Amino acid sequence: MEKKIFVVGIGPGNSEYMTPQARQAIADSDVVVGYDLYVELVKDLCQGKVVKSTAMKKEVDRCKLALDSALAGNKVAFVCSGDAGVYGMAGVMSEVAADHPQVEIVTVPGITAACSGAAVLGAPLIHDFAVISLSDLLTPWRDIEKRLDLAAQADFVICIYNPKSKKRHDYIDKAANIVSRSRGWDTACGYVKNIGRQGEQGVVCTLKDLIENDDIDMFTTVFIGKSTTRVINGKLVTPRGYRNV
Amino acid sequence: MEKKIFVVGIGPGNSEYMTPQARQAIADSDVVVGYDLYVELVKDLCQGKVVKSTAMKKEVDRCKLALDSALAGNKVAFVCSGDAGVYGMAGVMSEVAADHPQVEIVTVPGITAACSGAAVLGAPLIHDFAVISLSDLLTPWRDIEKRLDLAAQADFVICIYNPKSKKRHDYIDKAANIVSRSRGWDTACGYVKNIGRQGEQGVVCTLKDLIENDDIDMFTTVFIGKSTTRVINGKLVTPRGYRNV
Repeated sequence: MEKKIFVVGIGPGNSEYMTPQARQAIADSDVVVGYDLYVELVKDLCQGKVVKSTAMKKEVDRCKLALDSALAGNKVAFVCSGDAGVYGMAGVMSEVAADHPQVEIVTVPGITAACSGAAVLGAPLIHDFAVISLSDLLTPWRDIEKRLDLAAQADFVICIYNPKSKKRHDYIDKAANIVSRSRGWDTACGYVKNIGRQGEQGVVCTLKDLIENDDIDMFTTVFIGKSTTRVINGKLVTPRGYRNV
Repeated sequence: MEKKIFVVGIGPGNSEYMTPQARQAIADSDVVVGYDLYVELVKDLCQGKVVKSTAMKKEVDRCKLALDSALAGNKVAFVCSGDAGVYGMAGVMSEVAADHPQVEIVTVPGITAACSGAAVLGAPLIHDFAVISLSDLLTPWRDIEKRLDLAAQADFVICIYNPKSKKRHDYIDKAANIVSRSRGWDTACGYVKNIGRQGEQGVVCTLKDLIENDDIDMFTTVFIGKSTTRVINGKLVTPRGYRNV
């Protein structure tokens, strides 16, 4: 394969979280493709480059822009927030380029919201965990409900992406209700808004507090603790099981 | 809180993956604490600092070293591989320091093996996933079996940490057998050895190939695809569900 598209995870937004590998992949490219907001976050790296940005929800169009640029002989960096490989564009880019095996899709990992959000709250993901998106745009809601139920039964810490949107304002309530079949309403939980961006805010709370919470929006990542998760000096912490602490 | 311990995730090893935030936290510290191997990985940042390293499996001792250094008035960076918050030391550090609320435990996230390994293989984590460690040093094996079974039923992509050790050479076989109750033996899988270090190697394979595989060792991260995960141009890819690709 001679041609490459680097699908680059830039982390939550602040350049403090962007790896040198991600920075270099953008610096080495001729063309930068991405959603307007994410391209704006790396604009200092884009000087002298061709920038091709599209509005939200135009994921496939963005991939086609990246593919066309690569086929024309350009080095392409396709930027995503968080990790390019966690609900990111590395997958759909591979699908769009499936008939062009001469174009290699290279994933450059970044700090995903599960990790950056967990750090804000303390250490909730120290033991086995599940990551679930509540967006039913591309997944049937019944599958999401089944995953929430089984993850709660399995005593995973549960990290929730896309907990709400204008059309899905009550989905986090439904999720909390499903989890409550296996865990108490006083289960230690937390959520983080605007991770790594202006207005970052982490809140430690209970499962009950997630219900009808107007503070949770589409830019929030939610953490539901497992049975042993607890609050230590204001931080949300899941023990790994060390006996002699 | 006036005193702080920064528990720092340095990523998989190569400095290309270490965030500026992690680098800065180490640079700003007076004392660096960690397991010998991880301290060695950041030795260029440790010049002029007091370094306190311990052997493997001395996790609580390491936390006590860090706490004592912080209580004595030092700025402490406690280094971990991957993400400090995913099977990392941020949790046990918080437990050890629980009786000292004047010491804040600050988690600095890093690229965890789920993310760095997924990037090597392609894009397996594009949809909901579960992360499970097969180490039963601190978790009953029956709990691990239950989690594997329910995660497979829920059609999560499953990322496995600690798939084998000298004492646990057949655990990945047991895990594959449990998953096979819900998924075919031809399910698309993969594993990555020595992520971000010398000898890095990613292999795309099937669920069947994980059985009796001598290539998988304690430095390997394993990925078991969900029902829709497939191989595209040699990469392991989970579709997000875009209909019109």
